[in-house]
Amino acid sequence: MKALSGIFNRRTFIRTSAAIATGIGAVPSLSQAAPVFQDNVSVIGPREGFSPHIGTLLSMMAWMRMVVISSVDRLSKEELDYLHDGKSNTIGAMLLHLAATERAYQGSTMNVNSDYKELGNINWDAAMHLGDEGRNVIKGNSIAFYKNVLTAVRNRTIEEMKTRDDKWLLDVASGSVSRPINNYCKWFHVCEHESNHNGQIKWIKGRMPGAKNFGE
Amino acid sequence: MKALSGIFNRRTFIRTSAAIATGIGAVPSLSQAAPVFQDNVSVIGPREGFSPHIGTLLSMMAWMRMVVISSVDRLSKEELDYLHDGKSNTIGAMLLHLAATERAYQGSTMNVNSDYKELGNINWDAAMHLGDEGRNVIKGNSIAFYKNVLTAVRNRTIEEMKTRDDKWLLDVASGSVSRPINNYCKWFHVCEHESNHNGQIKWIKGRMPGAKNFGE
Repeated sequence: MKALSGIFNRRTFIRTSAAIATGIGAVPSLSQAAPVFQDNVSVIGPREGFSPHIGTLLSMMAWMRMVVISSVDRLSKEELDYLHDGKSNTIGAMLLHLAATERAYQGSTMNVNSDYKELGNINWDAAMHLGDEGRNVIKGNSIAFYKNVLTAVRNRTIEEMKTRDDKWLLDVASGSVSRPINNYCKWFHVCEHESNHNGQIKWIKGRMPGAKNFGE
Repeated sequence: MKALSGIFNRRTFIRTSAAIATGIGAVPSLSQAAPVFQDNVSVIGPREGFSPHIGTLLSMMAWMRMVVISSVDRLSKEELDYLHDGKSNTIGAMLLHLAATERAYQGSTMNVNSDYKELGNINWDAAMHLGDEGRNVIKGNSIAFYKNVLTAVRNRTIEEMKTRDDKWLLDVASGSVSRPINNYCKWFHVCEHESNHNGQIKWIKGRMPGAKNFGE
């Protein structure tokens, strides 16, 4: 087991731990808004004030968000707008896409009024679709802008989840799909979807002009 | 909400649903081994025979695996060995890396004897480290090979998890890291790590010679 632990520490875990150790300060707005998920961010499980499975889901989402933010927190506007090839998405566009996706699931599973007027004019369609529209429209923003949008949308999720229970999360809804599905699956998808794009973010980040490390 | 649902359906959810609708047949070995996680794969939550949080975690891992397999199930050996640039990992190497990572966490959190001799000579070090070693060593395998390894490792996880309880999953262990962490966090990482690499797999798959769609 010793050799295995060595590998495990070197490659996968220490990096995650480093993100954990340094990442909290990187998401101050999240920590201000939801200390219950900032405290012990690497302890996945129920949280006070939330039903057990909802608290657990939100703790995963908080951990995942911390990992994503640790990938992008020091990027300049130019880096956030870097286009690796003609069909790539910029890192900035992917970050807005994460917020747009979460907002979309708020709408479809919680019927939330998600105009987010307080955030200004955000082209949610472009953020959702990406592609040419995303490349044309989403640019020139700082990391503070993206973090602010992500946090605003996440805070709405937390607020709404507080009023719901495990029955809502676990019950199989009759939806438009032929296979049984529940809200936990939909919201787990919102969560793992951040990791999906984080894999791409790290890959692209590692290939920018002047990049020292290649993403993996 | 209607417009939102439209976006949501078009981009994110229908594709996931399509994977769900077609993906099950793509992982026959998983379904043979663990019907409790194949049935209602899009219903995340507790499963009979497992403690509530462990069953929920395993249901997420099963859903996530289905999504990954749906990305790679029709790839040829040449496609699995496709190298996008000199520092990329092949899709095949990433698949073996997912199995190696899960195996590493079996070792570190469950002290599992994970020699997997029945799978033949697998270079787990190369799979764990990737990089030059991975590029040199991991090649020439069919998708059946990778799926077989992934399933064998997953079956061991399921078997081991069956003997454990939520206390084991949730309790904060004294580890080598300074911040509190529990086994749920480590195993959630094993799960989201598949999505991280799936994002890269789709990106690379969309840029292979002859690729019709670009990954996102």
